[in-house]
Amino acid sequence: MPAADSTPPATFAEMRAVLARLPEADEAARTKVRLRQADLTKPPGSLGRLEEITEWLAAWQGTSQPRCRRPRVCVFAGSHGVAARGVSAYPTEVNAQMVQNFIAGGAAINQITAFIDGDLRVHEMDLDHPVGDFTRGPAMDEARCARAMAYGMMAAEPGIDVLCLGEMGIGNTTAAAALCLALLGGQAEDWVGPGTGVAGDALKRKVETVRLGLERHRAVLGSPLEVLAALGGEELAAICGAILAARMGRIPVLLDGYACTAAASVLYALQPHALDHCLVAHRSAEPAHAALCARLGQKPLLDLGMRLGEASGAALAVSLLKAACACLEGMASFGKAGVSGPI
Amino acid sequence: MPAADSTPPATFAEMRAVLARLPEADEAARTKVRLRQADLTKPPGSLGRLEEITEWLAAWQGTSQPRCRRPRVCVFAGSHGVAARGVSAYPTEVNAQMVQNFIAGGAAINQITAFIDGDLRVHEMDLDHPVGDFTRGPAMDEARCARAMAYGMMAAEPGIDVLCLGEMGIGNTTAAAALCLALLGGQAEDWVGPGTGVAGDALKRKVETVRLGLERHRAVLGSPLEVLAALGGEELAAICGAILAARMGRIPVLLDGYACTAAASVLYALQPHALDHCLVAHRSAEPAHAALCARLGQKPLLDLGMRLGEASGAALAVSLLKAACACLEGMASFGKAGVSGPI
Repeated sequence: MPAADSTPPATFAEMRAVLARLPEADEAARTKVRLRQADLTKPPGSLGRLEEITEWLAAWQGTSQPRCRRPRVCVFAGSHGVAARGVSAYPTEVNAQMVQNFIAGGAAINQITAFIDGDLRVHEMDLDHPVGDFTRGPAMDEARCARAMAYGMMAAEPGIDVLCLGEMGIGNTTAAAALCLALLGGQAEDWVGPGTGVAGDALKRKVETVRLGLERHRAVLGSPLEVLAALGGEELAAICGAILAARMGRIPVLLDGYACTAAASVLYALQPHALDHCLVAHRSAEPAHAALCARLGQKPLLDLGMRLGEASGAALAVSLLKAACACLEGMASFGKAGVSGPI
Repeated sequence: MPAADSTPPATFAEMRAVLARLPEADEAARTKVRLRQADLTKPPGSLGRLEEITEWLAAWQGTSQPRCRRPRVCVFAGSHGVAARGVSAYPTEVNAQMVQNFIAGGAAINQITAFIDGDLRVHEMDLDHPVGDFTRGPAMDEARCARAMAYGMMAAEPGIDVLCLGEMGIGNTTAAAALCLALLGGQAEDWVGPGTGVAGDALKRKVETVRLGLERHRAVLGSPLEVLAALGGEELAAICGAILAARMGRIPVLLDGYACTAAASVLYALQPHALDHCLVAHRSAEPAHAALCARLGQKPLLDLGMRLGEASGAALAVSLLKAACACLEGMASFGKAGVSGPI
């Protein structure tokens, strides 16, 4: 992540101004695709969500010929102060080590991105300076949080056809659980799960950490961006920024698992239509992800028991988008193929 | 489909002999892959079913380096006498028209097969001579059924890395429902659904057709191959043959939706381990498919509301196999990448 003075200035007030003027879907493009689907050589609706996918892509790309040729995969990596509380199975140093692994091509996301012919970008936040332990104070002040959002906004470059978002951050399922509890209510236990694989005492510490964080920051619960700063992390703020910039640039977004969807829920809390250009790519094995998706009105495309992060589920779901576009583009109509319609 | 005298001789007795000597999985290869997965740079198990997929491929391909480079996609097309009873939304002539569409490259399966870099083969059974209306007599006699199975066996050529099976046959969800009712019990209503999109009176006729078929063939219910002949169809028998030949040739199989899985259930009824080398690729929108999969102990890989047949769901699921193999092959180990393990 570049130093503060090289990023565009950004405040929560500016972010709220962006949220107040989000572009809408292109309903004409959506309708054109729907009509074309109905004329292709298959019973109406028989391609199921593949048909829904092409309509969604068309609506947000603003074209009746949706495409998914060179998807961008962005992985944001950030460090968390709460990791020092023993809430993760892995040490914080893994963040920087995994970034090196991404650069060297050895991680799962490298293989999946190559398979989908995507373009992987790894966005390293300030890994050497973890955000604060939210049980003691806010994870970030407004300036740091807004800067991380602005950094994320730069990831959504114009011309990208589909943007896959994901994260790497030891301790960030603890932050994600705290965000969900703050924004959606319930009990800490409802939102805390094993993450990378904690159980027993570590899982109890994780629940207690989330509970303490909520108590500490009770005063800001009514303001989603303040919640993000108090309980989130740089990579989660960057995901919020990337989602917003993608919306402004008419780029459909695939969201990865629990931490990524929890970040997106900050925008949902501010404006329920803010995620209309996003699909949750897969249902994570992290138990709370299903409830989170349901609260956002999202039905994940895949359900494969994955819980890796790194945008791995989002990138994998690109296969479905590509197949859906291929069917729309290549299939013959009933008339052209000489196939009889319904009796 | 070639004439009777050009296919290898085959009888139900010979098919039962094949079922009695099915090869087992290579557990050593499965274990090797499991151990390698545990050493890759990710929390153990975090790739979910992608890890299960590579172990399954390894076990049936008999190698610790499973592959899915050039999958074969086989679509068997057959005509059904019961279609004349008004159980489908489309006329029987669509079978031959869709085969022409497959050959011309205009169907969904053409686009999906091209996307997965697969090899599509369309196997036309005797479309001009539909199998008999099973409410009046057996759909096929033993000779015709066994010949169709033998024909299907030839589709599983040695050297194929993964075989996707699917079908085309107006009226065959009626036959599939009859097979399920005969083999798994329950009521006709439990297994009959809209298929290509029937409702109202046509749906009632479909239920009644299945009920009449079961009454007519009560005498053969104890013998799964006799059930297949009495209530099935040539394309469904061919799928059974292809599954058996794939097992003999150690080729992992992806099964498509309801009709395909119903055909496979004939083999399951004969020998519950006969489908160990098969995965159901997707859960069809046909309502009974979920119950059928559960009865076979299968958890479909995808659930996208598809209900097209043509092996479309099976071919789409190949993406998951390819991504899984790419991760296994390309990911770095913790040691090689210099990433710390669990605390």
